[in-house]
Formats: sequence, C-alpha cells, structure tokens
Amino acid sequence: MIIMSTDASPKQIEVVISRVEKLGFEPHTTRGKERTVIAVVGDQPIKTQSHFAHMPGVDRVVPISRPYKLSSREFIPEDSSFPLDGVRIGDNGIVIIAGPCAVEDRGLLMEIAHAVKEAGAHALRGGSFKPRTSPYAFQGLGEKALVWLAEAREATGLPVVTEAMSPDQIPLVAEYADVIQIGARSMQNYNLLHAAGESQHPILLKRGMSSTAEELLMAAEYILSHGNRRVILCERGIRTFETSTRNTTDINVIPVLKSHTHLPVIIDPSHSTGNWQYVSAVARAGIAAGADGLIVEVHSEPENALSDGFQSLKPERFVELVQQIQRIAEAIGRTVAVKEPH
Amino acid sequence: MIIMSTDASPKQIEVVISRVEKLGFEPHTTRGKERTVIAVVGDQPIKTQSHFAHMPGVDRVVPISRPYKLSSREFIPEDSSFPLDGVRIGDNGIVIIAGPCAVEDRGLLMEIAHAVKEAGAHALRGGSFKPRTSPYAFQGLGEKALVWLAEAREATGLPVVTEAMSPDQIPLVAEYADVIQIGARSMQNYNLLHAAGESQHPILLKRGMSSTAEELLMAAEYILSHGNRRVILCERGIRTFETSTRNTTDINVIPVLKSHTHLPVIIDPSHSTGNWQYVSAVARAGIAAGADGLIVEVHSEPENALSDGFQSLKPERFVELVQQIQRIAEAIGRTVAVKEPH
Amino acid sequence: MIIMSTDASPKQIEVVISRVEKLGFEPHTTRGKERTVIAVVGDQPIKTQSHFAHMPGVDRVVPISRPYKLSSREFIPEDSSFPLDGVRIGDNGIVIIAGPCAVEDRGLLMEIAHAVKEAGAHALRGGSFKPRTSPYAFQGLGEKALVWLAEAREATGLPVVTEAMSPDQIPLVAEYADVIQIGARSMQNYNLLHAAGESQHPILLKRGMSSTAEELLMAAEYILSHGNRRVILCERGIRTFETSTRNTTDINVIPVLKSHTHLPVIIDPSHSTGNWQYVSAVARAGIAAGADGLIVEVHSEPENALSDGFQSLKPERFVELVQQIQRIAEAIGRTVAVKEPH
Amino acid sequence: MIIMSTDASPKQIEVVISRVEKLGFEPHTTRGKERTVIAVVGDQPIKTQSHFAHMPGVDRVVPISRPYKLSSREFIPEDSSFPLDGVRIGDNGIVIIAGPCAVEDRGLLMEIAHAVKEAGAHALRGGSFKPRTSPYAFQGLGEKALVWLAEAREATGLPVVTEAMSPDQIPLVAEYADVIQIGARSMQNYNLLHAAGESQHPILLKRGMSSTAEELLMAAEYILSHGNRRVILCERGIRTFETSTRNTTDINVIPVLKSHTHLPVIIDPSHSTGNWQYVSAVARAGIAAGADGLIVEVHSEPENALSDGFQSLKPERFVELVQQIQRIAEAIGRTVAVKEPH
Repeated sequence: MIIMSTDASPKQIEVVISRVEKLGFEPHTTRGKERTVIAVVGDQPIKTQSHFAHMPGVDRVVPISRPYKLSSREFIPEDSSFPLDGVRIGDNGIVIIAGPCAVEDRGLLMEIAHAVKEAGAHALRGGSFKPRTSPYAFQGLGEKALVWLAEAREATGLPVVTEAMSPDQIPLVAEYADVIQIGARSMQNYNLLHAAGESQHPILLKRGMSSTAEELLMAAEYILSHGNRRVILCERGIRTFETSTRNTTDINVIPVLKSHTHLPVIIDPSHSTGNWQYVSAVARAGIAAGADGLIVEVHSEPENALSDGFQSLKPERFVELVQQIQRIAEAIGRTVAVKEPH
Repeated sequence: MIIMSTDASPKQIEVVISRVEKLGFEPHTTRGKERTVIAVVGDQPIKTQSHFAHMPGVDRVVPISRPYKLSSREFIPEDSSFPLDGVRIGDNGIVIIAGPCAVEDRGLLMEIAHAVKEAGAHALRGGSFKPRTSPYAFQGLGEKALVWLAEAREATGLPVVTEAMSPDQIPLVAEYADVIQIGARSMQNYNLLHAAGESQHPILLKRGMSSTAEELLMAAEYILSHGNRRVILCERGIRTFETSTRNTTDINVIPVLKSHTHLPVIIDPSHSTGNWQYVSAVARAGIAAGADGLIVEVHSEPENALSDGFQSLKPERFVELVQQIQRIAEAIGRTVAVKEPH
Repeated sequence: MIIMSTDASPKQIEVVISRVEKLGFEPHTTRGKERTVIAVVGDQPIKTQSHFAHMPGVDRVVPISRPYKLSSREFIPEDSSFPLDGVRIGDNGIVIIAGPCAVEDRGLLMEIAHAVKEAGAHALRGGSFKPRTSPYAFQGLGEKALVWLAEAREATGLPVVTEAMSPDQIPLVAEYADVIQIGARSMQNYNLLHAAGESQHPILLKRGMSSTAEELLMAAEYILSHGNRRVILCERGIRTFETSTRNTTDINVIPVLKSHTHLPVIIDPSHSTGNWQYVSAVARAGIAAGADGLIVEVHSEPENALSDGFQSLKPERFVELVQQIQRIAEAIGRTVAVKEPH
Repeated sequence: MIIMSTDASPKQIEVVISRVEKLGFEPHTTRGKERTVIAVVGDQPIKTQSHFAHMPGVDRVVPISRPYKLSSREFIPEDSSFPLDGVRIGDNGIVIIAGPCAVEDRGLLMEIAHAVKEAGAHALRGGSFKPRTSPYAFQGLGEKALVWLAEAREATGLPVVTEAMSPDQIPLVAEYADVIQIGARSMQNYNLLHAAGESQHPILLKRGMSSTAEELLMAAEYILSHGNRRVILCERGIRTFETSTRNTTDINVIPVLKSHTHLPVIIDPSHSTGNWQYVSAVARAGIAAGADGLIVEVHSEPENALSDGFQSLKPERFVELVQQIQRIAEAIGRTVAVKEPH
C-alpha cells in the first residue's frame, strides 16, 4: 500500500503507477479527498517496499500482508500439538517443565530432578551452556552437565530441556536432550535457527527480550521453513522502563499468540519476573490467560546457586505452585497433563 | 549512600565526609578494595542527594530509603479495605466495575447499566469528561453525563465511578459519583492529586502509561498525605515497543504492588489490551495474579461507540467473563464479592 | 483502510462495503491474492474506525490520514517564527534560554540571570510552580518566585519563561512571564492545553516522557485549534530501558518534527540527560541536528540547589557551551540569534 | 551492599553478617534511622549477590562495583586508538565508513566504492552475510560478496568492514575483510564474541537494539578478555515506543560511553533512523556529541536495493554529508581523518 503525499503531483502519481506495473504487479488506485493511495496487488509485494519509498511524492509505504506463513493460524487453523515423552504439548493438558537454572553439581541435580518429578513436573530443565552477560560469570559445565541431565532422565523418567547456543552445539545437545532450547539472546541468531530447523527435536523458542510478537513468529518461521514443525513458543518477559522486576511479563502476548499462531505457547515466570516472590502469581496468570504450559526454575539451595538463585523456587513452594496451577487449569476447563503409560 | 570513584583522593573523601557532618548527618565510611562508600545516616537524607553529586571524586549517589511512606506496607502491614456501597474493596471478595467507556446516550447507558448489574457487576463506570489525544475527537458530555450516571445508580443500585480531569471538576464529580477516577494521563497532575486528597470520596488512581510502580505509589502518597486514605490503584497497561496490543499489561506489577503497599489493586484489561478479543484472558490473569478487582468496558453496541468501541465487551461476553472470574477467584481461595443488604 | 481477514467470506465483505456506504463514505475495494482491502474515502473517515473493527471478517483497520492539521507542514509549508523580545524563535538564529531549575532565592536568581545574560542567553528560565514526584519534595515558591522573575527581567532585559501547572495558574503566570511553559507531565492535560490555546502568550510545550512525536503534535493542535498559533515544541528526553542517563534524548525527533511541522523546535539537554557532564555534548548534537534553540539549566551553586542540581551547569561551563553552540551554528549555516535594539 | 528491611530483626541482621564473614568477606554495618545496610568488602563480592537475596530480613542487594574492567576508563584512562589502513580510529580525526547495506552486484559495488572513496570515506562497508528477520528475505551472497569486497579494496584502497554472524564465519571473513563487524542481533552471541576475541582483526561491535550501555561494555569485555584489544563500539539506535523512526538514536550514549570507556565510539545513523531523510542530521549530531566516526549506508540506486534501500543515501547526498561533517568536526576542534601515505 503506497501512500502518496497530500501535495503529490499527478505526474508523480503516474510515475509510481507505471513502476508498479513494470515490476509485474497490478496497481489499484484510490483517490481520497486528501491524498491518493496505490495498492500493489500480486505475489509477495512486500519485497518491493523499498523500491517505492524513495520516489518523489511518496509519503510512506504500509505493508498489508503478514510476513509469516507456516506459523500462522490463517495457514493452519487447528492447534498444533506434539508428544513429549508421554504427554502432549499444545493439547488440553498443561505441561510443566522445572529444574535448576544451571546444572552445577550431579548430586544436587538428582535431588532437584526427583523433587520436581514428585511435585508433578513433566520435564526437567537445566542449563549446560549458559549465556551470561559477563565473561567473568559462571558459563555452564557444558557436556559434563549434559551427561548428568541424561542420567537424571534415566533416574526419573523426565524428558530433558536444555539450551544450545550455537549451530555446532545442536548435534551434541540433541544427543542428550529431548527438547532443544533457543534462548532469548539467540532468538535472532539465524544460523542457529536454521540448524534447529534441520533438527528432528522439538525446539523451545524463547522470545527475545525486545522482540515483538511478530518477530517471535518470524523466528519460528525460520525453524518451520527448514523442516522442523515442532516449535514451542515461550514468553519470558520483555525489557521496559519498569525496574521493580527484572523484566516485564507481557501477559497480553499469550492471547495474541494463541490467536495468531497454531503453535503451543508457554510462559517462563522465573525470567519474566526475576524474583521468586512473584513467580507463582505470574505463573497462575499465564495459565489463566491461556498458556499451554510453564517453565519454572526450582532449586533446593537457591542461596548457593551459581546463576539466578534469586528467581528460583524452593521445592516446597513448587509443590504449592503445581497445586495452584491444577486449580487454575480446572477453572478454565483444562487440566494439568497426565502422563500416559508407555 | 555516596559512592566515590576508584581514583578519588583521600583529600576528596575527607571533604565529602566533612560536608556530610556539616549538614547534620552522620557519615559511615566503608573502604572497599576498589572504592570508598560513605553512608549518610539521619532524617530524610534523600533530600541532600544533589549536594554531593557534583563534588570532586564522587562517582554517584544511590538512595537507600524508599521515598513513600503512608502507602507503604512497611508502614501499614495489613491490607487496607473500605466500603463501596455494600461491598468492600481490598477484602477477600473480588469487586467488578463495568460500563461504557464514555456516556453517550441516556437510554443506552440505562440499558448497559441494567445489563452489567444483572451479570454481577458491583459498580458502574462511564466517562463524563474524556481526555482525548485529538482536539477533534468526542470530549465527553460533561455534567449531562453525570446526571444520567446518577439516574442509572438510582435505577440499578450500582455505585458510580467516573473521571475528574482537573481540580475544579472534583466537587462537581463528587456530587454525582461515588468513586472519583484519576486517569492515566493525570497520574502526575499534582494539583489534581492534591484536590483528590482533600475529597472524602474513594479515589480510583490509574497508573500512568509510562509510570513505574514506585511513581504510582508516590502519586498515591500525594492523595494519602492530604488526608484521603481511600485510594484504589489500577494497572491499565504501560507503553512498550510491542505493537500487537495498544498497551502492554504489566502483570508483574500486581504482586509487586500487593507486596509493597496495603492499598487495594485492580486491573483494567480493556485499556491494557485495547482489543476486546484479549480482554477476558487478561482479566482472568489479573485476578489469578492477585488483583482485588476489575474495571472493564462493556457496551451493547460497540460498533457505534464514540470512544474506544474496539476494546468494549458486549454484554453477553461480559456475562461469561463474570462466570470465569468467579471460577478463577475460587481457584485461589477468594470469591466474587457479594453485596450485603442495606 | 479496512483490511479483511484472509478467510473473510464474500458475504462479510459485502456487509462491510454496504456499511461504508451507509455512513456516507465511498468504498474503494482492492482484491489481492491473499485478502481484500477496502479504502474508505470521504471527510474525516478516521472517526469511523471503531465502527468496523468489530465486524465479522475484519482483520484490522489502518488509518491513512494524519490526525493533526494546523500544526502540519502539509497545511503550512513555511517555517513559523515569532518574536521573543528582540529575537525571533523559528528563524535562522538559534535562541538560548537558560536559568535555574527552580527559583529559590532572590539574590541567587539575580546572580544567575546576570550570568546567563552576559554569557549570551536570550531568555531566562526558572520554575515557580514545580511538579515533583514526591509530595515531600520542594514544590516551588509560587507567586513570590514570579515576582522575582519579573524583577530579574527588569534588571537584565531577558524575557522570562516559566511553567503553569493548571488552567487557573495561566492568568497569573501570564501576568509576570513572557512565555508560558507546559511541562512534560502536563503534555496531555487537555484542560491546561485548552487554556493555553486561549492565552496570547507564546507557549513552550514540552514533549511528555512517553509521548510519540505524533502525540506531541496533537497536543500542539489543541493549543493551535483554540486560537494561539505561537507554540514552541521541546524535546526533553523520553523514557526507555536505558538507565545510564535519566532519560534518553530522542535526537531523531528533531529532524522528524522539522519535517512534519512548521513550528519551532528546541531541545532541553538538562532534562534529557539528567547529568551536567553530558549536557554540553547533547546540546551541541541538538543544534547540529537542526533544533532552533536550547533550554538549559544553569545554577551558580548546583550543590545547594533544592531541585535537579545534578543536571545544572555552572555559569563558567555555560559560557563555554554558548561558544560551542556559536561554532556549531556556523558549521550548519546558522548563527546564534542577535538581539535587535528596541 | 545488602539493604535490610525496616522490620528486620536483630537476629536476622546477625545471621546475614555471619554469612558474609563465612564467605570470606568483611561486613561493614551501618545502622540508619529506618534500616540497616551491610557493605560486603573483598574481592569480587558481586558474585555473591544471590547468596543474600533470599535471606529473611533482606530487602534488596545493590551492587556497587562496575562489572567490566578491561573496557573501563577507570582501568585505562587514556583513549585507545589503532590503525585502520593509513588512518587511526579513536584519535582526533573522524573516521567515515560507507557503502551499501548488502553487496548485491559486482559492478554496483565497484561504482559505490569509487563514489564513497572520492567523497572522502576512509573504509568501505557492505554486507556479505545478512541477518534478516524473515527467512524469505534476501540473506546475502556470502563468500562471493567477500571476494567482490576484496576486489573493491584492491581498486580503491579502502579497507573493508563486513559482518560475521557465527564463530565459524570469522576465519573466512578475516581472510577478505579488514574489520569484522558483530551485528546488533549478535551482540550477546557469546560464542561469536569469544571467537572475535581470538581474532587479530579489529572488531566493530554494534550495540544490541535493547542493550544498555553497560551491556555493550560487557560484550566488549568478552572480546578484550579473550585477547583482542581493538574494539570499536557503535551506537545504531535502540528500540523504544516511538514509531516515527525505525529505532531511536540514543545520542546520550555517545558522551556516556566516552566517559566510561577508552574504546573508540562511532555512530550508525542509517540504522538508527531507518530513513535517509534523517541520516545527515543525526550523523552531524553524533559527531557534535563526540563520536569518533560514522558508518553510513550509501547506494547509487536505493530504489533497487534488496535490503534497506529506504535508509541509504545517494552518493551526491553523501558528498554533502562529508562536507557537513568536516565543518562540524572543525567546530569542536577535530578534523576528518586524513590518510597517511604508505
């Protein structure tokens, strides 16, 4: 949609129209009281945007088509769901993923894995490779952590979710984990998205801290367009002017995403608040707003955690949270997912 | 707390310390490995901040005390609650306020008032004076609308909530309404806050669209410090980079406010989303996160509304929403408030 | 511009078209490969936006016309300029306004007024009524400060700029001051804008800290449409996630405003940085980007200032700044304004 | 700095103090009128932050030390500068980098390279690997583009700046280019930063669109701490609520960075505005604010560009811009850099 200036001359309008035709599109011209608007009709007119923006007499160019397709609910109207070791994500049952921010110690990981399993979690999270703002902060234990996570799965039966930070880590992570996480800082690491699209594993894609809902769907589109249809979207808080919590949970994005895409959507209240005191309230809110699941940090000794201890729930509080989620789920006609026997 | 530069000289530190003493405060000096920090102890040291910021060798000044007092939970640990015509706001029961964005027509207002009353609302909202971005947009009907609101109260028994935009409107609004609203754009209109503080009416104080939680509490402090203790805080969305909804509902602020203040907190999902399709999801989220109530726009003919029709629920959807809120309230051990007989 | 969903039925499209006609507009329909778009042609179609947003099959409604008119460069192509006691603002000469944040003491005000006059300032600023976040902070001296400001004008010949916070303060401020300032927190105080529009005094309108360029122009439109054409726009920093300065100077808005409006535009580097160390750099940047003037805080004893001392320049630094501005002005083919003899 | 609640018990304070001691730090306790504050003195106390945040009676923990070191001006007070093929970046002379957003065609690249060389540019920019929001947009020509860039260097003598998007692209890019760019979306791609730190090439590090100044310095710290001291910081606009330009140029960050770090700082007005009409104004502002250089998009046929044509200057406008920069540089006592003969 090309919007001409109010003072565009008939000649300038003519030139724009003939360029639309020359590029193989059909121009539809509307002459308003104040200005003329030219609609560009054809295949993927969005690519031609910059062709017109510089032309004399053009005020601005407004795109009409949405730029994503495979992730769009207009393209696939039904909810997508897929299995996660005995439960389905994207279905009526709420899926809960829990565990420590970073894997730090084998014994501690086992202890937490058993605790979250008992409380009702469906999957275990834990960072092996940690993206950290400071080069001097703890960077994760790497493959050693992956081995321990696989052992924790063995011991508890919980599938494992962990992050890959670069394309070359994907095969390694895929060897040990069940779901590969793309972190918020990597949401626009296109080489990584490309590699994730070629993986067979479900991808947990976190929204970048300053990415729009549309950009999140475009990042998902990278993965889908490279062949992997199993993508879980995750709201983990955005960056705003408010400083009383580490990020601002964009609760609106839950119904927005559920309306625009068929992909499952979960919420991460640990990162979106950055403060354990607010985690349960925001987790309840996410489920009440329509999220399909939860990823939450649990640590049995948060005061000794090497990363993000301040936002981790102790196991006893996590038990309470699962019970609250159960009641909220029922209030909106859903349940917490129940694992099917193999 | 005065933080000296790493290269501050002993002389510079000495000068800062003696100025602290001259101003009547007690300096407490901590010499770290990298830098020296001087704590200023005494009454309201916060006022002296700029006295030190310019001094040679000073890196920055960090305030430690919170700047609000009467609204603080540290000052009043128990929840504040107060009556609203037969229900109490701030108590266990969730309070629901509903009605049109603007009062436009007497008949329509009566119709909507009866509809929301029947659906279970506890109070009627409706704008008489409308703050509008454009001078060419509908500005509200003023006193005529106030008269109709009072008639709607007469007919339905619902107390009335409506906005005052300037100090001189407060007596007029107080004559007809039960609760005086201070809108988001007026949250830092200090003359208005002052006048609201001298009123006997409960005040519904909306968070400014780019105000922090702390600034909202400071605005409440203006009202409280002028003698009116009945203030209801309202989250109505903040301005961020995300454009898929009109504002971003800051759901984190619900538990943050409940932890920092004793005042009741409600949520306005109509303004915080700007889109009727997302209103119910965000309303449920707000209650699940711990809000004490809801203010929501309902209009029987949203397609003909002169203001904000796009975010108004039709009465039949509002009926459903009240039922959903009832179930969410129960899930967290609360109820929707029940009006006591007079 | 009404954008239909990709799955809108021919019937739904028909219904929208006939409603456009019924409202007295002309529908122009463009059928693309993916979706249909209906342009609404006629007088002020913008008011009808919400009429269509709720209709079945409608995806979204995109406004095409700009919502302001009198402030628009499309309406008045030439720069507006007007006299300010011997200089013209909006002309080729850069106008510099300087003085203390708040008027605190008569002697100090006189001292600063003489200092800024000597350094080359064209007008004196100073707060009489101070909007303060905290009810416990210094609120300004009110009329006493106005009297002193008028005395400083008498002594130095500098016209006076000071803020009015409410409609009823406008006549009082107008009695003593030459330019009435509307502060950032009041930019959407519509009753105040209305009153400013009925004044004969030039208005210095500060951008709200989370207002868009378009909203600033809409606020100016309130003043212009009530009869006062002498409005100076002022960028004073916006609120973002960045915390290393108090606000973020939106330098882009200088050329944006100069392109969209004929009104003069100035920059306030004191509030837009909140730190005297960055004031001169940002002042130079503002003029280099095309601003018509500068408003800057100067205080001879910033360490004793009751308000915003941290962002005030000492007179000796202000002298240097005026010299820098002179050189930057020349580099872009302008000058610092020279006062004409009476 | 551990800040206790106002209602912390003496017992709770005691427990915190003894934990500080047990961790090997020295506690310095200040008892104010309202609350107690405990300073933690020792080596890198910042790592212990989460150890205390969960403890009963603790209100919050405020870090005092800055988390970066090698990039800090406190560590290296003098400006860093380093050679760039005959000019020095970080010195008194302003360095100008120009060229197309993406390399699209050999002939066109040569034409633009000659044009910017003649206009006075010191280096040639051009994207070989393009990070694009959409998987369907032009992704760059990869190695073919690198070969052409090297040919353009051969022909014009201009050193080449181009982006690497993943660690494995660094050796390839290093083979052809003189400066390796880390793009805004990659600023927190820590594996890439690590690889850049092991390179011998100067790194042009762009600020992430929602990264703070401190996070930019932390990203630089990754590169510096892995051995590469030649890092150029680049402001390219941040994401805010304002939509009249694509991003908001944070002009404040120029003097902020110059004050906090010794590294050279440049500005990218093409991305920070997203609109060629505003590029020159913002480029002038950047230099006036103290930037050491400029990176700007120039394209001889912007209307045919496959990427970002809307923000590219035509060569004739770029000639004007270089002249303007020359005058602004002189106004602040600098010059545009002059290439030394080999």
